[in-house]
Parts: sequence; structure tokens; C-alpha cells
Amino acid sequence: MAFLSLRRALTLPLPKWERGLWALALLASPALADGLIDNANGYSFDGKGQLVRFNGLLIDDQGKVAKLLDRNDKRPEKLDYRLDAKGRTVIPGLIDAHGHVMALGAAALSLDLSATNSLAEMQDALRRYAADRPTPLWIGGGGWNQERWGLGRFPTAADIDAITPGRPVVLNRVDGHALLANSAAMAAAGISAATKDPPGGRIERDAKGKPTGVFIDAAQHLIRDSVPPMLPRDRDAALARAQDILLSYGITATADMGTSTDDWAVMRRAGDAGRLKLRIIAYAGGIPALLSIAGTGPTPWLYDGRLRMIGVKLYDDGALGSRGAWLKAPYADAPGQKGLQFLDDAKLRNLMSRAAMDGFQTAVHAIGDAANAQLLDAIDELAATYKGDRRWRIEHAQIVDPADLSRFGRNGIVASMQPVHQTSDRLMAEARLGPNRLGGAYAWKAMLDNKAPLAFGSDYPVESPNPFPALATAISRQDERGQPAGGWQPQQAITLPQAFRAFTETAAFAGFAEDRIGTLMPGRMADFLILDRDIFTATAPDIRAAKPVETWIGGKRIWVAK
Amino acid sequence: MAFLSLRRALTLPLPKWERGLWALALLASPALADGLIDNANGYSFDGKGQLVRFNGLLIDDQGKVAKLLDRNDKRPEKLDYRLDAKGRTVIPGLIDAHGHVMALGAAALSLDLSATNSLAEMQDALRRYAADRPTPLWIGGGGWNQERWGLGRFPTAADIDAITPGRPVVLNRVDGHALLANSAAMAAAGISAATKDPPGGRIERDAKGKPTGVFIDAAQHLIRDSVPPMLPRDRDAALARAQDILLSYGITATADMGTSTDDWAVMRRAGDAGRLKLRIIAYAGGIPALLSIAGTGPTPWLYDGRLRMIGVKLYDDGALGSRGAWLKAPYADAPGQKGLQFLDDAKLRNLMSRAAMDGFQTAVHAIGDAANAQLLDAIDELAATYKGDRRWRIEHAQIVDPADLSRFGRNGIVASMQPVHQTSDRLMAEARLGPNRLGGAYAWKAMLDNKAPLAFGSDYPVESPNPFPALATAISRQDERGQPAGGWQPQQAITLPQAFRAFTETAAFAGFAEDRIGTLMPGRMADFLILDRDIFTATAPDIRAAKPVETWIGGKRIWVAK
Repeated sequence: MAFLSLRRALTLPLPKWERGLWALALLASPALADGLIDNANGYSFDGKGQLVRFNGLLIDDQGKVAKLLDRNDKRPEKLDYRLDAKGRTVIPGLIDAHGHVMALGAAALSLDLSATNSLAEMQDALRRYAADRPTPLWIGGGGWNQERWGLGRFPTAADIDAITPGRPVVLNRVDGHALLANSAAMAAAGISAATKDPPGGRIERDAKGKPTGVFIDAAQHLIRDSVPPMLPRDRDAALARAQDILLSYGITATADMGTSTDDWAVMRRAGDAGRLKLRIIAYAGGIPALLSIAGTGPTPWLYDGRLRMIGVKLYDDGALGSRGAWLKAPYADAPGQKGLQFLDDAKLRNLMSRAAMDGFQTAVHAIGDAANAQLLDAIDELAATYKGDRRWRIEHAQIVDPADLSRFGRNGIVASMQPVHQTSDRLMAEARLGPNRLGGAYAWKAMLDNKAPLAFGSDYPVESPNPFPALATAISRQDERGQPAGGWQPQQAITLPQAFRAFTETAAFAGFAEDRIGTLMPGRMADFLILDRDIFTATAPDIRAAKPVETWIGGKRIWVAK
Repeated sequence: MAFLSLRRALTLPLPKWERGLWALALLASPALADGLIDNANGYSFDGKGQLVRFNGLLIDDQGKVAKLLDRNDKRPEKLDYRLDAKGRTVIPGLIDAHGHVMALGAAALSLDLSATNSLAEMQDALRRYAADRPTPLWIGGGGWNQERWGLGRFPTAADIDAITPGRPVVLNRVDGHALLANSAAMAAAGISAATKDPPGGRIERDAKGKPTGVFIDAAQHLIRDSVPPMLPRDRDAALARAQDILLSYGITATADMGTSTDDWAVMRRAGDAGRLKLRIIAYAGGIPALLSIAGTGPTPWLYDGRLRMIGVKLYDDGALGSRGAWLKAPYADAPGQKGLQFLDDAKLRNLMSRAAMDGFQTAVHAIGDAANAQLLDAIDELAATYKGDRRWRIEHAQIVDPADLSRFGRNGIVASMQPVHQTSDRLMAEARLGPNRLGGAYAWKAMLDNKAPLAFGSDYPVESPNPFPALATAISRQDERGQPAGGWQPQQAITLPQAFRAFTETAAFAGFAEDRIGTLMPGRMADFLILDRDIFTATAPDIRAAKPVETWIGGKRIWVAK
């Protein structure tokens, strides 16, 4: 089987609160069986946008929800197992509508700089990591953010050259749209002052034109192409690590945005070997990967509903941090620059058509208002040709011209957004756009008002995959320090049920999976969490701190808090 | 399920001889069930090299052989189905130890020139094919052999340019080691007199150095890289066609020698969709594909024993026809040329080590005596490091220095050879090598004398995948016209049981699959053929004409002669 057997799941170390529990009947056989989660403070959407409550969750021998029970409903007399939730909150497993599974695992195995608050802290972290790991020769990592450091400039190779003599170092910026290479890495890649900026990319240079170490958007390939590929065992380890991280945060299903043929092979190896635990809805990283892997249409659900390729991820522009987001008007803090347009109108339509003609879903990255407008135009045109239930996904939709917001409610567009980007980006967004172009920035409420299906995710590993800070952010527009007071652009805050729905029912809908996950209605998979608190009666800071106590997938307990 | 259900299998149109049969009880359910093939003239090896006979084949509800019965053994009273073979010959499904599945299917969908006996016939065939298929623009095909045509030279672009004006044409030589491009294809690929021969390849040129249209070995890429890729639906169709062809010849399992990541994706799509019928033992086309697909070790058997990646295919030299085979002494008909060495000693060992260190099997193409000697040296060295049951495969082993023949019996080497190459190549081999270097050519008997496991295949689509002409050739060393009288180098002929074993028990062993296929001993999969004649009492011409009447895989009838 694809994950911990029921027997093993039920014999995992129990959390403290559950010790001495009378009701947990262990099975002799590892096969699935009828079970009941009882005395739950249960919440689920009903598949039609209504929040429903339940006290008991009856699970059938296929790992599906058989019935939701009220407190007074009669319990079956014969059950193979029964768990007393003791009044704790039970919710559907959360679904991340936009993540990068392999990158999350690889990042977790590499140097994590996301907690560094200064260049000096980054230098210390690099020194420790290099000392701990004499091999492999190349050092990879990421998570740096010169904005967070308050550095006022990009870091440079010179900042890190002395720390790891002879060892190439490549460190990704937090948003994945820029990297920092040391001199050894640039030498290995053959970079010099004579190296030209590639189309769609930029090399940071000093006054004499010599590259300083930072490579933006398409220029990153100049370095990345020289990095030795990961070994298969490291790829397998990365997937295992990613799964463990996601399950610990209560993520039971995720979209994988940009699955490469190598990524897909890793996922299939895990599935073949019974090591695939969570559910992955894969969007191929570009048309060639889509056609190679899935070929003539979406794959069936594989491995007992744990893996499917449904469509393709495309990129229409870059990101705001590196000024790659394509804007209608120039950047407020870089006059004359409007960002990077990745695809002209014809190319965008051609790529989307190539996927749509075979019934594939498209999920297109669009961050700047010009990119969003271009994509909305393309969808207007394509929707006339490719009829039916298409669910055109716009990924991020971060900076939308207020004049374009109402267009999200048309053509079956899904707005796939990431709440935590708002708190991470707000100061930068103000700098990049100035005060007068923020009316359609991170505009969750506007999406709902316009009746666009709103699916939430984290864009992990750009942000943490922990969905609870995202839920808190969605209702407060405030960061973990409660900043800014009153919330940033608070008119775009939404309610907790709305945010919860975006992480469950609508996130499933966004991946054509609402018939099996996202709610706990009868017939859906019994993917659910037992939480340490009731998020529906909590304040934003309290929601932010919420943690799963147990994570169940398909009627099996596969993760328990230590 | 991965193939026709039993119900559908049992309701396929019955061949004439079987009409009115009383014993074929149709099942209400498509599930597998206990069955008996009775009154069979049965032959199988016993897994230890002994030929055994049987009259009844009892099949369990897992599709495995339960028991072989003598004529006098009591038959079970309760059976879900029973087939009276009426004395016909029943043998294990034949296994092709060296084929190219996707190329077979693609070739079957493209222009087949293998039956052309002259340049004029080829020109006619091209004209008809182009007229029948106005799209796609590019015309692909293969199977030409200027030796067979008696042309005395390679064909040229000028020979075909007038036939398909404006349409690029690319036609592979029968051995896959050379191609003929027309001028439109050369123009699309940017070929001119200035184009240099790449390492490991050669461009045929006229007296002025202008390419004439034939590109040999590595030079083929200069053209192939410009051919538009096959569409996914055409790839899927090619696999379906390949399966149908193989099943019709009684091939129930095959090694796929050089599986690309795209090929693997096609096979997985077929498996996922239940369209994979025969068993494929895949050898990745090179180390990058191996590491991407299988990663850290051979895959498990997938799709109910229908697909597995066990190792890697490597190339140590080219082929004899295009003088790419690497010889110890110069070609007799091209003084000064010794062929093409693809890998130096270190590179060969490094590639084989990279596979072996993770438990992958290696299958290395070696045709010339120098290539075989180099590979034997490498195996001597590697076997000291990589212990255990490794089954180092040497593919083709066509021209072996007689001094090296005894080395095949050491280190667990498997000689993977293709009988029909002997009859196709003999005149050419005599021309290429002269009369005094043929003592180790196509030396099947010497392999057995030296106790090397001998696995047979066809190298389809280079040759037809029909194994019955191969069995006839193995015992006669004569072609379909009975030439030459007395057989070519007849001291290397083997017996029919020996040849049959090489297509069953040892072909399974060569792919680490003898625990499940290759014999009809109890516990093995019920993969078998009902033949139209008893090949064990037949003459070589009679064996050559033998045909399956039915092909069964895993206890299900999946092909029936029309």
C-alpha cells in the first residue's frame, strides 16, 4: 500500500491527550475497515458553499466518508475501530492549490536562509552548513531576501567568496526569481564581463560591467545549467521530506505547479514503491513535459487517488521582488522599467491552446497587472473555442488593475492566490507600485465579490506551507507581528469560512478534484485533521498558531504530532 | 485490467478448428478463474535446462500455472473453463531478448522499405506512400539495404528528390546505423559542404565534398535533430501497433533495448489505462534516462507483471553494414578502416559502474571483435567489484575473435544474440571480414559449448520479430531460400531444443525474469502459445512457417489467429 498501514497508523505513538483512550480498537488486519471518529467538533463545507457541522465521522472500508453524524444520531453497533476526538476540532485535510513539492523537499535538504535577518546572519549560516557538509562539492540553498535584511542592495559574490574557498555556491532568492552565485560558481559557468543578458533575464553588474553575482529570471539559467544534477537518491529523499513537512502542517493534497519529467519520475517511483502518502495534482512544467508525460489527455488518478497530471503550468511574467512582474506602468522605484513579459499574445494563446485542445487544464502564472490583463484577454478568446468546464487558472493574480477585477468572474476562471504573499510583500509592493496602484493588489475579497472561485495556497517553498498563518492573514491582512495595525488594505480581508473554503472545497475544485476531496461529505475520501484548537472561534493570532494533532488520509492515520 | 478480460478473451472469434468445441465454458464474471488446457502436445523447459512434456496445463485463478498434467493424470472435476487443444502443440510464450518496441510500432506506421529489392522498387514505394499521406509534411521510413538491392553504392538524395518535391524525407537503413535524407531534409537541417563529420559519425560526400544524403552513425543526429517529434497520439498508436505485431508472432514478453524517457512515458500511459498487453523488460537508453526513470535501482514489476526497468542499454560500437562495427584488424573491403569505437576503456567502465553500483543490469551493444574484446576486459574488471548475480549482457556478440570465445563462459556473462542477423548478414560479413576471420562469427554453438547463457531475439525492427524463422535459422544456418546449401559455417548450428530454450527459459533469465516467465513450470505465469504445428518434429522450412493459433498471457487469451 501507498502509505502506513492502518495497523501501523493506529499503533503510532499516541499524543498525550489520547493516552488511556478506551475506544481505539486495534485491528488484527491492516486492511481498511469501518470506523468512527466520534465526539468531534466537526466542520466541513458541503460541496455547495455551505458550512456544515458534525459530531461523528463515519468512515467506510474504502477509506471514504460514509456519513456525518449529529450528536444525537445513533452510532453503528459494529465498528472495526472508533476514535474519541474528545470534543476536538475535526476539519477536512487542507489543500494547497499552489506549491512546488520537489523544491520544498530539496530546499529542506539544502541551506535554508529564510530566517536570516541580515547579511551577517546569512554568512554565518553558510559557514556552518559548509563545515557540516564537506560533500557534495557544490553548495545549494535559498531563502535570502535583501529586503528583509534591510541591505538596500543585492548581495554580491564578494560577500560570500571568502567563506567557502574552492566550493561553488548557488543561493536562490526567496521568490525563486533571482539567485546569488559566488565567484567559484560563476567561474564554473564561464561567466565574465563579456556574458550578455539573455532574453527575459538580467545580470547584475558593477560600474565596469562585471557581473556581481546576482542573476535575475532567465539569467539564472546561466548558472543553474552548470550545477550538477541531483542524484536520484537525493531526489527520492527530497520527496519524502516534502511529504513529511506537508503532512505535519495538515496538508493532505497539493497542486504541484511545474512538474518536470524528472519530478514525475520521482513521484512515480514513490507510488510504485508504496511511499506516496499525500495526494498530488500535477501541472507539468511546460508543454514538452506535459506532452511527454501525459500525452493525449490528463492521466487517470493513480495510486489509489494519490497522483494525477491534470494540466500544464505556464509563466506569463516574473515576480515583483526582482522587478520581473510585468506592469502596465513603470515601476515606481525603477522608472522606465515595466518588468518582463515572458510571452507575446500569440505565443501565450498557442501554448494554452496546445494544452486545451487535448483537454488539459492550464494554470498560468501572472503577477503584474499587464500580465493579468494579457491573460484575461487570452482566456476571453480561448473560452470561445474550448467550451465546457475548463477552469482556466490564473496563478497569483497579485497585482490586478482594478478595472480588470470584474473580468475574473467570467469564463470559469479560477483565482489561485497565496495569502502570505500579501504580508511578505506589502512593503515591497508599496515601493514597487507607489501608493496609488494598490487597489487590485492581493484582492481576495474582490475575487469573491466577482464570484471567481478563489483557491488558496502558499507557493511553498517561497513561503512556508503552513496553512494556518495563511488563514489568519486572510481574515486580518496582518503579519505575525500584527502589522500593520488594522490590516493592510483591509477592505480585501475575507471571513474565516471564506478562507477555509479556499483551502478546502475550492482548492479541490481548482484541480478538478471536488468529487473526491476538499469536503467531508459522504462519498468523499476521509482526509481530515484533528486540530489542537477550534479555529472557527479563535482570533487571528490564535488561528496562526493552530496545529494539527493528527493527519488522516483515505481513512488512515498517517501523521501524529509528537 | 491491463488487457482483454477473460470474458472478452474467451469470446473472441474462434479459429475454424475450434468451432463447436464443447469444452469452452464461458464465465459470467470477467475475473480470472481456474482453467485447464487439455489434450495438449505440450513442451516446456523445466527451469533447469531439461525439456519436459505435458498433456494438460492447469491454470490457477491468479493466471499462473498450477500444474502440468500427463495424459493419465486425473483432471479436476470443478473447473471454470476448459479448452481442448485437440492434440495441438502448446509451448511457453516466446521471449524476444533484444527488440525496440516503440521503433517497431513507429516503423509499422511509417514507410516500410524492407521488402524492396532495388532502388527502383524503393522509389515506387516512396511515391505511393507520399501520395497516400499528404500529412504530416515530413515523411519517415526505413528498412532499405543497398546490399540487398545490389546497388554497389549508397543511395543518394538525388535518387529521391524528384519523387516528393518540397517534402523532407528521412529513410533509415535496415540496421539503424545510417540514414538517407533528401535535399529538403538536408536543407531543413542546415547541412552543406561546410558541415563537418561529428565524432563517431560520417557524412557520405561526393568528389567535391558535398553531402550526398547518407549519414552514418553519430552523423545521423545532424538530420534527426531537425525531424519534428512524434505527437503523443502517434506514440500511443505506435505502442499499440507494436503489441499487436508481437502478439501475432507469439511474443509474450520482450526486452526493450534503449527505452527513452518518452518511450517509458508511453508505456506507463498504456499501463495506467489498461492497454499494456505484453510484458516489457526495459533497458534505459543511456545513463541519464536510467537515472531519471528508475533512479536508485530496478523498478518493481508494474501492471501485474507487464513492465519493469531492470537496467541500461549502452553502445560500444556501430554495425557491420555501415562499417561502424569496431574491428581488431581493418575491414577487408575498406582497407585502413577499423570501424567506430564509441567509448574508450575508462568511459565504458564508468558508464557500466554507474549502473552496477545501484544494482542495475548492463546490456552493452558489441558487434565487432575489438568491441567484444574491450567489453570482455571491462567485465573482467567490473565483476571483481560488483559481486553477486549480475548477468552482464553482451548484445549481438556478432564478430568475436575465436581467441575470446571462451571468455563468454566467465563472470556470469549473457550472450544476447539474434539468429536472423546471420542469414541477413552473411554475404556482407564475408565481404567485410574476408574468409579468414569468420571463426567466431554468429557463434551460437561456441557460446553453449562455453556454457554462456544464450538468449535469442530478433533486434526488431531491424529484422522481423517473427521468432519461427529465427528458430529455423538457428538449426540450419540457412536463409528462407535454403541458402547456402549445407548452411553457413554450419559448425555453429544448434539443436531446436537449444534454440527454443534461448527464446524462452534463457531469454527470461537474461532479464532476471525466470522466476515468473520463460517456462510453464508451476508458479510461473501462464503465458503460452497454441501452434499450428509441432515444431519439435518439423524440418527447418516447416519450423520457419509455423504460426501461433492463439496467444495467452497470464492465463488470458489475448490474441487469436484470424
